[in-house]
Amino acid sequence: MKLFYSPGACSIGIHVILEEIGKPFETQLVSTRDGSNKKPEYLAINPKAKVPALLRDDGTVLTEFPVIAWWLAKANPMSNLIAVEFEAEARTLEWMDYLCGTVHPQGFTRQFRPANFAKDAEDEARVVAQGKALTEGYLQVVERGLAGDPWLLPSGYSVADCALFFITNWASGRSGMTLPPKLARHQAAMMARPAVQRALAREAKAA
Amino acid sequence: MKLFYSPGACSIGIHVILEEIGKPFETQLVSTRDGSNKKPEYLAINPKAKVPALLRDDGTVLTEFPVIAWWLAKANPMSNLIAVEFEAEARTLEWMDYLCGTVHPQGFTRQFRPANFAKDAEDEARVVAQGKALTEGYLQVVERGLAGDPWLLPSGYSVADCALFFITNWASGRSGMTLPPKLARHQAAMMARPAVQRALAREAKAA
Ligand SMILES: N[C@@H](CCC(=O)N[C@@H](CS)C(=O)NCC(=O)O)C(=O)O
Ligand SMILES: N[C@@H](CCC(=O)N[C@@H](CS)C(=O)NCC(=O)O)C(=O)O
Repeated sequence: MKLFYSPGACSIGIHVILEEIGKPFETQLVSTRDGSNKKPEYLAINPKAKVPALLRDDGTVLTEFPVIAWWLAKANPMSNLIAVEFEAEARTLEWMDYLCGTVHPQGFTRQFRPANFAKDAEDEARVVAQGKALTEGYLQVVERGLAGDPWLLPSGYSVADCALFFITNWASGRSGMTLPPKLARHQAAMMARPAVQRALAREAKAA
Repeated sequence: MKLFYSPGACSIGIHVILEEIGKPFETQLVSTRDGSNKKPEYLAINPKAKVPALLRDDGTVLTEFPVIAWWLAKANPMSNLIAVEFEAEARTLEWMDYLCGTVHPQGFTRQFRPANFAKDAEDEARVVAQGKALTEGYLQVVERGLAGDPWLLPSGYSVADCALFFITNWASGRSGMTLPPKLARHQAAMMARPAVQRALAREAKAA
């Protein structure tokens, strides 16, 4: 199994999941900063030109954060990273879709890649501010919806928490935002996990 | 069961799924054009202010297209709307996430709601053109990845096809784009389905 990731990207969440599972895996850095994700070698692996992507032992590649996370959790039931119960599984997917399909592309992509939205260089500050304002609203939805303590779901720690981790990390880090109280507690609980520390350390060394 | 939808929105895909399943359901129009989705009554149902949302028989609400679709398919196994096999289920989710988490928010939202991106009214044409260019690229990824005939997946017709349906509908309709050949065949195959015709007719009557 090999994870294609870029340091600081959303792929850190999948990196954490692989560490939680604890089976051997490889990582391959595909920097989105220098555009390595758009080179032919990588497009042959993931035509969407995005990280994360997961090369599996049968040679096939899986993409999309929520799906990689769900697949890893279901393929490794002993790791207890997704509830067995149908309804809790649906809620796990629902949170991941909101975090990866709305908060990330509409809130953070505006902040981190304003040139993809702005009219010109001068217009970028407006885009960043708009991204921040959207993110504030999205984080309030998560804060109010967070139903576990400290985890997202009352059914306990899950891959959805690993998705929330890259979001709180971006918000309090690169975006310089103050996390609302439950999200701050969530972040602290994540930072205390050895799997998180191992994934962060490996990415820091590679960056 | 009640579907909250807006005519012409991505919710048409869930509407089709409900018609495919064929059990009784209600629909409630929440117009995103007049902003009904942002009114307190609707925020109490879905704080994310989006359609689709599904009110289930136990009184709880499920959101996010891929998750509503997956949940409906899994809860109604006789309808055969998602493969039983784990790998094919993963691929179904993977396509839905790409269509709903990338093609929709990055490609079409720019085209349909340019004011949410543009610097000013004059800048909107640039945003629409950018949305169209992004969409062209995304549709090529889908065209090349389409592995069934005419359906997305070799495992057969699934809820992922209902997600692709709202995308091809938008592309060939409101966006005035020419669909690549496999996507055009997919659209024609969808249009031939009685469930699709019933959902379209109900939304046309309500609009
Ligand atoms: N829908 C994808 C999105 C992944 C994504 O946007 N990844 C970013 C890094 S955080 C990326 O690869 N960006 C590179 C680029 O857009 O050039 C998912 O959830 O996995
Ligand atoms: N991530 C959501 C997005 C749904 C979405 O964006 N729906 C649009 C209609 S196509 C909407 O409700 N827009 C209203 C608005 O943004 O004000 C999903 O996949 O269900």
